[in-house]
Amino acid sequence: MKDFTFNIPTKIYFGKDNLDKLPEEIKKYGKKVLLVYGKNSIKKIGLYDEIVELFKKNDIKYWEVSGVVPNPRIDKVRKGVEIVKKEKIDFILAVGGGSTIDTAKLIAVASPIEEDPWDIVIRKVTPKKGLPIGTILTLSATGSETNTSSVITNEETGQKLGWASEYAMPKFSFMNPEYTTFVNSYHTAAGTSDIMSHTMENYFSLNDGAYLQDRMAEAILKTCIYYGPIAMKDPDNYEARANLMWAGTWAINGLLDSGKDTAWSVHPMEHELSAKRDITHGVGLAILTPYWLEYSLSEKTEEKIADFGYNVFDIEKGNSKREDAEEAIKALREFFISLGIPKRLRDVDFKEDELRDMAKNCVENRIKPEINGFIHLEEEDVYQIYKMAF
Amino acid sequence: MKDFTFNIPTKIYFGKDNLDKLPEEIKKYGKKVLLVYGKNSIKKIGLYDEIVELFKKNDIKYWEVSGVVPNPRIDKVRKGVEIVKKEKIDFILAVGGGSTIDTAKLIAVASPIEEDPWDIVIRKVTPKKGLPIGTILTLSATGSETNTSSVITNEETGQKLGWASEYAMPKFSFMNPEYTTFVNSYHTAAGTSDIMSHTMENYFSLNDGAYLQDRMAEAILKTCIYYGPIAMKDPDNYEARANLMWAGTWAINGLLDSGKDTAWSVHPMEHELSAKRDITHGVGLAILTPYWLEYSLSEKTEEKIADFGYNVFDIEKGNSKREDAEEAIKALREFFISLGIPKRLRDVDFKEDELRDMAKNCVENRIKPEINGFIHLEEEDVYQIYKMAF
Repeated sequence: MKDFTFNIPTKIYFGKDNLDKLPEEIKKYGKKVLLVYGKNSIKKIGLYDEIVELFKKNDIKYWEVSGVVPNPRIDKVRKGVEIVKKEKIDFILAVGGGSTIDTAKLIAVASPIEEDPWDIVIRKVTPKKGLPIGTILTLSATGSETNTSSVITNEETGQKLGWASEYAMPKFSFMNPEYTTFVNSYHTAAGTSDIMSHTMENYFSLNDGAYLQDRMAEAILKTCIYYGPIAMKDPDNYEARANLMWAGTWAINGLLDSGKDTAWSVHPMEHELSAKRDITHGVGLAILTPYWLEYSLSEKTEEKIADFGYNVFDIEKGNSKREDAEEAIKALREFFISLGIPKRLRDVDFKEDELRDMAKNCVENRIKPEINGFIHLEEEDVYQIYKMAF
Repeated sequence: MKDFTFNIPTKIYFGKDNLDKLPEEIKKYGKKVLLVYGKNSIKKIGLYDEIVELFKKNDIKYWEVSGVVPNPRIDKVRKGVEIVKKEKIDFILAVGGGSTIDTAKLIAVASPIEEDPWDIVIRKVTPKKGLPIGTILTLSATGSETNTSSVITNEETGQKLGWASEYAMPKFSFMNPEYTTFVNSYHTAAGTSDIMSHTMENYFSLNDGAYLQDRMAEAILKTCIYYGPIAMKDPDNYEARANLMWAGTWAINGLLDSGKDTAWSVHPMEHELSAKRDITHGVGLAILTPYWLEYSLSEKTEEKIADFGYNVFDIEKGNSKREDAEEAIKALREFFISLGIPKRLRDVDFKEDELRDMAKNCVENRIKPEINGFIHLEEEDVYQIYKMAF
C-alpha cells in the first residue's frame, strides 16, 4: 500500500428530513448565495420553492445561474463568475447532479482570479482559494458532492477536461434519496453505470496490496448490481435510491483509491465520446468498459479480473483463471445490457472513420500522451479499443 | 435506511514517510503541546525522539503526561487537565493506541471546564468546546483516531464507561503501519478482534435496508480474517499491518452505522469484564461475541447470521438457514481460537459466582437498564450469555 492522505471534511446530511438545516449551514459561510442549477427539474419536484422559502425566512439573498446541461459548459461558469464578481457573492449553492456541482466548483475557484475560468481547467492557472460551496444532490452518479474534482466542456475548443482543487471541496452536501425517485429509468441506468465505472477505475490495478480497498470496491459494485435494476423498475423504492446514492459518494471520495496507483483509463476514453456526441457519460462508460477489460486481459491481469468475477458476480471457481476472467467480463457486459445500455458505439451514432481522430485526441488531451492505468495504453491501443467497441 | 449525518473532518496521513508534516499541522492550532503517551514503547521504537526533535526544530514547546495504561484511568486525565490549565497549553498530541487517544480526548474537553473530568463521562456536564487534538497511532484496534468516542475507567467507582463529544474529534491523525510492527502477537490478535467486534456491532441489525453498509462491513471482516493471522506470524509484513490499520479506522468512523440503528451489545458486556479483571478489551470481546450470537439466534435473526457466514466465511449455501447460521458462529469462534484467544471466561480467571453481579452492573451502567441491540437484552439475558461464555 502506498502512502496517502485522506481528507473528506464535507458534512453530509443524508435522508428525507434534513433540509431545514440548510440556512444554518449556509450562514456559517455567507449570506449572499449564487444558486446554480440545471433545467426545470428542481422546480418540478418542488425543491426550488422549498429552498427559496428557506432563503426568504432566513434573510439569505440569492442570485441564479440556471440551465446547466449534462457535460456542463464553460459559458455557464463564465456567467456565474460574472455575477459573483458583480454582486460580491460569498457562497455557492449547487442544486442538481454532477454537472451542476462541477459548474459550481469552477465558479467557486475562478471567481477570485482575473484570468478566464478555462485557464484553471487547462492548468494555466492554479487556484489559490475558492468561495465556499454547498450542494443539494438530486442524482446518484458522479460523486462530485464529496470530492475536489470537476469536468467541464469547452465547445469552442472541442475539449472535455477534468480538473481538481482542494478549494473546490464542498463544505456540506444534502443528500435526499427521494429527489432521485424522479430520475427516469434511462438516467438511473446511466448513473448506476457511472458509479460502477468510478469503482472499477479504482479497483482494476495490480499488486498494490490494497486488499481492504478492493473489498470495499466490490461492496459498492454489488450494491449497484443489486439496486440498479430495482430502482429502474420501481422508481419510488427508497431503499434502492438510498443505497445507490450512498454508493455514488463512496465510489469516488478517496476511499477506494487510497494507497493505490489508479490512473483512470475508461474515463479519458469516454470523454472523447461525450465531447463529440453529447451522449450520457455513464452510457459511454458502460459501452467501453467491457471492451477495455477484454483488451486488457493477459496473463498479468487475468487473476484480478477473475477475482472481480468471483467476488462481484459470484462466478464459481473451477475453470482456468483466463476462462473465469472471460466469464466475468461477459457477466459485466450482460449486466449493462440488462440495464438497457447499448452494446456498441455504432448504436449511439458513431462512425468508424472518426475513431482514429478520437483516439488521437484522447491521448493528446493528457499531460503525457498515454494512459498509464491497469494496462499501459497509447493512441493505437485506444484506437483498437474504440474499434472493438464499434 | 434511516436519516443520518456523516462527518469525519480528521485529516489522515497514512503511510511510512509523513511525520515531517507534523509540525505544520500542529502549528495550525497552537504552539504549546501536551504530549500524551503510554509506557515506554514509543521511546523504544524511536518515535518519541523523532517527535521531540521535530518540536525543537520548529519551536514547539511541550509538556508530558505519560504512563497511560490499557483501560485508561481518570487519574491520568486529571493530571493532564492540571498541566493544561497551569501551562496554558493549546494543543493535545496523543501518541499511542486507543487508550492514549481516549485519555487525550477527555483532557481536551475537560480542560475548559471547572468541574471534574469524570462529570463529562457520567453526563453531568456536557462539553461545549475542546482543545484541538492530533494523534499518532501506534496500534490498530480502537479506531479512536477518527471518531468522537472515548472510554475511561474510574477505579474508585469500579466503572468503565464510554462517552462522546463532537469536540473530541481529532484534527489530524498520522497512521504509520510500521509502528504497529512492534505490536506483539497477543496484542495483534486482540486488536484484530477489537476491529472485528466494532464491525459486527454495526453489522448485526435487522431490516434496516443498509445493504451497502453491510457489504462494507463484510469487506472489513474479510480483511481482518485474511491479515490478522499474517500479521501475527510475520510481524513485519507491511501489507498486513497497513490493511489492519486502515480497517480499524473504517470499522468505527461512522460509515458502517450510517443509516442504521446499532445499539452495541457486546461492548457493554465486555466493559464489565475489563473493568473487573483488566483483561485486554479485544480478548474479552472475542470471547463473548460467539456466545452472544448463539444466544441471539432465532427465526428472526438466522438469516442475517447465515448471510454473515456466506459473505464473510464463504460458507456454502445448502442447508437450512438455521444450520448455516450455526456454522457461521462456529467459524467465527474457530477463527478467534486460531488467533490464540481463550474460549471461555473461566480461562481468564473469572469465577461463576461473580457473573450475576457483572450482569447487574452491565445494565445498570446504562441510561436505561437494557441493551436494545440485535436482540433486546435485559439483566437476565446478559447473565445467561455470561454463563454460556463461562
